[in-house]
Amino acid sequence: MSKEKCKIGVVAPASRMSPEVAERVRTLAGSLYPDRTPEIFFHPQCFAAHGHFAGDDETRAQAFLDIANDESYDAVWFARGGYGSCRVVEAVMCRLTEPSRRKAYVGYSDAGILLAALYRAGFDAVAHGPVAQDILRPAGDAAVGRVLAWMIDRAPEALEPTVGRAKKTAAFNMTVLSQLLGTPLQPDLGGHVLMLEEVAEAMYRIDRSLFHITSNAEIRRVSGIMLGRCTAITSNEPDFGMHEEEVARYWCRRSGIPWLGRADIGHDADNKIVPFGSHAPIAE
Amino acid sequence: MSKEKCKIGVVAPASRMSPEVAERVRTLAGSLYPDRTPEIFFHPQCFAAHGHFAGDDETRAQAFLDIANDESYDAVWFARGGYGSCRVVEAVMCRLTEPSRRKAYVGYSDAGILLAALYRAGFDAVAHGPVAQDILRPAGDAAVGRVLAWMIDRAPEALEPTVGRAKKTAAFNMTVLSQLLGTPLQPDLGGHVLMLEEVAEAMYRIDRSLFHITSNAEIRRVSGIMLGRCTAITSNEPDFGMHEEEVARYWCRRSGIPWLGRADIGHDADNKIVPFGSHAPIAE
Repeated sequence: MSKEKCKIGVVAPASRMSPEVAERVRTLAGSLYPDRTPEIFFHPQCFAAHGHFAGDDETRAQAFLDIANDESYDAVWFARGGYGSCRVVEAVMCRLTEPSRRKAYVGYSDAGILLAALYRAGFDAVAHGPVAQDILRPAGDAAVGRVLAWMIDRAPEALEPTVGRAKKTAAFNMTVLSQLLGTPLQPDLGGHVLMLEEVAEAMYRIDRSLFHITSNAEIRRVSGIMLGRCTAITSNEPDFGMHEEEVARYWCRRSGIPWLGRADIGHDADNKIVPFGSHAPIAE
Repeated sequence: MSKEKCKIGVVAPASRMSPEVAERVRTLAGSLYPDRTPEIFFHPQCFAAHGHFAGDDETRAQAFLDIANDESYDAVWFARGGYGSCRVVEAVMCRLTEPSRRKAYVGYSDAGILLAALYRAGFDAVAHGPVAQDILRPAGDAAVGRVLAWMIDRAPEALEPTVGRAKKTAAFNMTVLSQLLGTPLQPDLGGHVLMLEEVAEAMYRIDRSLFHITSNAEIRRVSGIMLGRCTAITSNEPDFGMHEEEVARYWCRRSGIPWLGRADIGHDADNKIVPFGSHAPIAE
């Protein structure tokens, strides 16, 4: 970074963050970077509650804008996924100002809605990677350490291992990408290696999401698909008869999209960073 | 009908039909139409099993074509929903022949994939309505009686009550329509009253499906949305804070799509018939 200390703002455009996350993340950051501890601001909105969401739509949109439009921040970090970004993305994108372009954005799962919109709008430091709440997972310190290493130093070891070999990359939760298809938020992924992961869905839903994704003409312009981890797959009645890699290979074959193997991403502590677009080294 | 007796073929492009359905449906048809009992042929494929599906992809596609391309049948009736039509729709649509255009197609839920493709291809007797397996529901005889009345006589009392007032109509399960958006199967619903129903999804998923559907530029050309029943809604953690009509009204307002109230469709025995397109009286 060009600055001595990285300043990170955490916001929750979807579900509410657990209260213990902030303290644990700050403690970890202090121990990992004793000489240049990043300043991590958890927007109070992270702890707000409004039905399913971390505050109502306007509260969540405004919190995102508070950080994104503030020149002093180097990164907007998503508190967690859950659900709700699709309700605020339009308000957020309409009200972003110039300073919002000069910072990084990192999250995954539901956050993919906003990452897609930012990437589509030409933002150049958008990445699929751990959220703050991942610190609560078993071995979650590793996930948070990894995303800090990327936000602070763009550390190459934080990246999904194949990122450096791809011309362009993007990563999404399957269901979240599916819900963007055919909307004005769908990003142009032509020429990208597209990495997909899933969590807590039945096999028939994984199959259906892959039908949907690989049937989209724009998606068929990707350079290939890599399958991340599909974890906590819920029961399928009767047994589906195929596992996630078989169905991913099936839909790649059906659609003519190159199958490029497995990706090191998923809803777990091992979730590696996948920058959207070209893997550009950090600007000095 | 121009013929003395209606001939109906039942196929299962998705999940397997329960074995007791055929006998119960035939008995009911005999009691409802003693003088002109329709001939109802349950394709053996309905009882096949291949993992999740009623036979493998080719078996299911071929069974559909066996009935659709046979001049002697007046109607193709879906055995049930479940999941699997997306895997056979391409093979089916490529191999349909001229006789397939001169018959009715009735089903809902997963069958919406094939109904959409047939309607898009200009088939003029495509309808959202009960499947054979609905006879197993409480009061399921009413559902099957209703769909027989439509297939045999195009009985106006079988129709969703607002159909006659709409210029054009279409009906879908929300998730199924969502999974068609942005694919070559997405039908042109411009000027249609679009009726949507859902079953066994959490409120956040209903909200997300409505975001997806109402964000699509082509869907925004509908003349309005009507909400069918959303049944067996699964638990939402935390409580979502809004019910299905509130979120449907919200997304209609956001998208500028007219909200037209409730529709008499759903995953239940009361599910009324919604023909796709203009409500044309039966050809004599």
